Amino acid sequence: MSRFFSYRHTSLAPYTPGEQPQDMLYTKLNTNESPFPPSPAVVRAAEREAGRLQLYSDPACNALRAAAAAHYGVGPENIMAVNGSDEALYFAFHAFGDEKHPFAFPDITYGFYPVYADVLHIPAHILPVGEDLAIDPADYLGLGENIVLANPNAPTGQLLGTADIRRILLSNPDSVVVVDEAYINFGGESCVPLISEFDNLLVVQTFSKSHSLAGGRLGFAIGPEALIRDLNTLRYAANPYNVNRMTQAAGIAALEDNEYYMENCRVIRETRQYTAEALKTMGFEVLPSMANFVFARADRLPGGELYRSLKERGVLVRWFDLPRIRDYVRITIGSREQMDILLSAIEAIFDERSRKS
Amino acid sequence: MSRFFSYRHTSLAPYTPGEQPQDMLYTKLNTNESPFPPSPAVVRAAEREAGRLQLYSDPACNALRAAAAAHYGVGPENIMAVNGSDEALYFAFHAFGDEKHPFAFPDITYGFYPVYADVLHIPAHILPVGEDLAIDPADYLGLGENIVLANPNAPTGQLLGTADIRRILLSNPDSVVVVDEAYINFGGESCVPLISEFDNLLVVQTFSKSHSLAGGRLGFAIGPEALIRDLNTLRYAANPYNVNRMTQAAGIAALEDNEYYMENCRVIRETRQYTAEALKTMGFEVLPSMANFVFARADRLPGGELYRSLKERGVLVRWFDLPRIRDYVRITIGSREQMDILLSAIEAIFDERSRKS
Repeated sequence: MSRFFSYRHTSLAPYTPGEQPQDMLYTKLNTNESPFPPSPAVVRAAEREAGRLQLYSDPACNALRAAAAAHYGVGPENIMAVNGSDEALYFAFHAFGDEKHPFAFPDITYGFYPVYADVLHIPAHILPVGEDLAIDPADYLGLGENIVLANPNAPTGQLLGTADIRRILLSNPDSVVVVDEAYINFGGESCVPLISEFDNLLVVQTFSKSHSLAGGRLGFAIGPEALIRDLNTLRYAANPYNVNRMTQAAGIAALEDNEYYMENCRVIRETRQYTAEALKTMGFEVLPSMANFVFARADRLPGGELYRSLKERGVLVRWFDLPRIRDYVRITIGSREQMDILLSAIEAIFDERSRKS
Repeated sequence: MSRFFSYRHTSLAPYTPGEQPQDMLYTKLNTNESPFPPSPAVVRAAEREAGRLQLYSDPACNALRAAAAAHYGVGPENIMAVNGSDEALYFAFHAFGDEKHPFAFPDITYGFYPVYADVLHIPAHILPVGEDLAIDPADYLGLGENIVLANPNAPTGQLLGTADIRRILLSNPDSVVVVDEAYINFGGESCVPLISEFDNLLVVQTFSKSHSLAGGRLGFAIGPEALIRDLNTLRYAANPYNVNRMTQAAGIAALEDNEYYMENCRVIRETRQYTAEALKTMGFEVLPSMANFVFARADRLPGGELYRSLKERGVLVRWFDLPRIRDYVRITIGSREQMDILLSAIEAIFDERSRKS
């Protein structure tokens, strides 16, 4: 830290993204990327813009928002495009949180929520999930605080139904409920249709996972017009040209090619079931997941050791060295071939250990 | 504003970007874009990444920072890549400003500085420029406050020498001096070499103007390692994957093709001189500019009227409806052909008015 760094940040612990090591080629199952490339039309759309980069992108993202509005069945005034959904989450904390308006969220969830609260000096009200690591929606009834819920939750993959979200919205009418649907396309039901009913619902989605655009950076905030206007006020006070030309074009093409991506999601769900069953056969406990990853633990091997042994064998998974979940690893669902490499590697690790003991 | 918007922001007036109208094709001289497309190698580099967008970009931007470090003659630890230089400026205000550490800047400068101060609740110390709209470096000596100076300044185009910046740095040793060099490649001398000498200097550059990447979104913060580390702490607490894959690759290629861009800058300087002389011949006062725009006023036509008349004729320039500069328009230096269209349009407007009177 420099001697000029503001006292406001001196205790700040930033988010640690999943590792992106460059030392060798890994079977990369650690950051929930899609095993499928973007569709050919998306590639062409991005390529077409590469020759026009001397011109600014549209800060209002009008064409992209029109396409997204048609896709989500809302108006363009209900949508803000962002440089990855993290940006939308940051703006949501910034817009609706302050000393008197905390954000409540589970202890086991996306690791960025406490960081946003911290950097923006918003109190965090952390509610422990159950023994099974599941969120109990009853904990969020009548809180009278802003709430952010990843649904399905990360890193557990567990899903709340829209009926539960609706109860939470109804019982916190004077607070904003942010539903982070980064993984919704892998088996969950989206809350987007509820935005016409609730003035306090903000839905955040990303094209990083289901729509194969992690490296393009595209997310959306979807909500009632007044909430979107608030987020835009902050976006125009920070970085209005936040989504570049190539990504705006790629996003429009991805929305037009939605069937390609939904078919990919279907394959990933199948591969998830295959992987979960194989892991269970090998003695793992696997949490029920509606995301493109599974959260699993093996009684005979602590999470950290499994993570390190897999990395030595060229397979990257995500391990969180945190209370309550230290025994687990989070495994992205890649292609069937990638999952077979993972399963073989685990088998080899188990074999080696039983020979040693 | 929604009923949920934090009191922190209720008086916030966001930045207004230059208009990007879609109703017709304009000769667009209002947002300081380059008239030159990115070099063929840059286009190819961006295109190559379009097919790999399912994978996250490198949050550390290692390859891009290595290329930029070689270009700037600094270490990679002295560089942070950003999604347009606005993002770097936001992080700089956020990192080094607070209630007790104001930011000082001129009254006539980049319109985003007061917005950053406002949204981040940092006091702004606004120092009036002279009658000639020039910054007097003496005003910034011994201030004991963080300082941000656009150099050349926007929207005037006027340049301070590095000797002046050095005096300001020396006399404010306990505050950060941010030098925003968005337009430095059009005739100014960069302060980057000073970062090895001063622990309180942060230089911000953008590839939007001289490097034809406005629509790709790429900027750099360049400074002593400790300052860059502070900025990274905030970047990792906001949006670590801020620069997408295509733009990282485009940036590396642009650095390798730097000669192409420097030749473009040379042509723009020639066209600037041609334009300034033509405007003076038509009775304009034109401020001495070292940027890719000129700031000019015609005694016989207020800025707002000139802006509107030009827009009616399909030529967009930037007009700021603000005290002290209401009489001026800011005209981007485009191609020679674009400037001739502008000059003919002004001539026609003047003719029409003299016929009427």
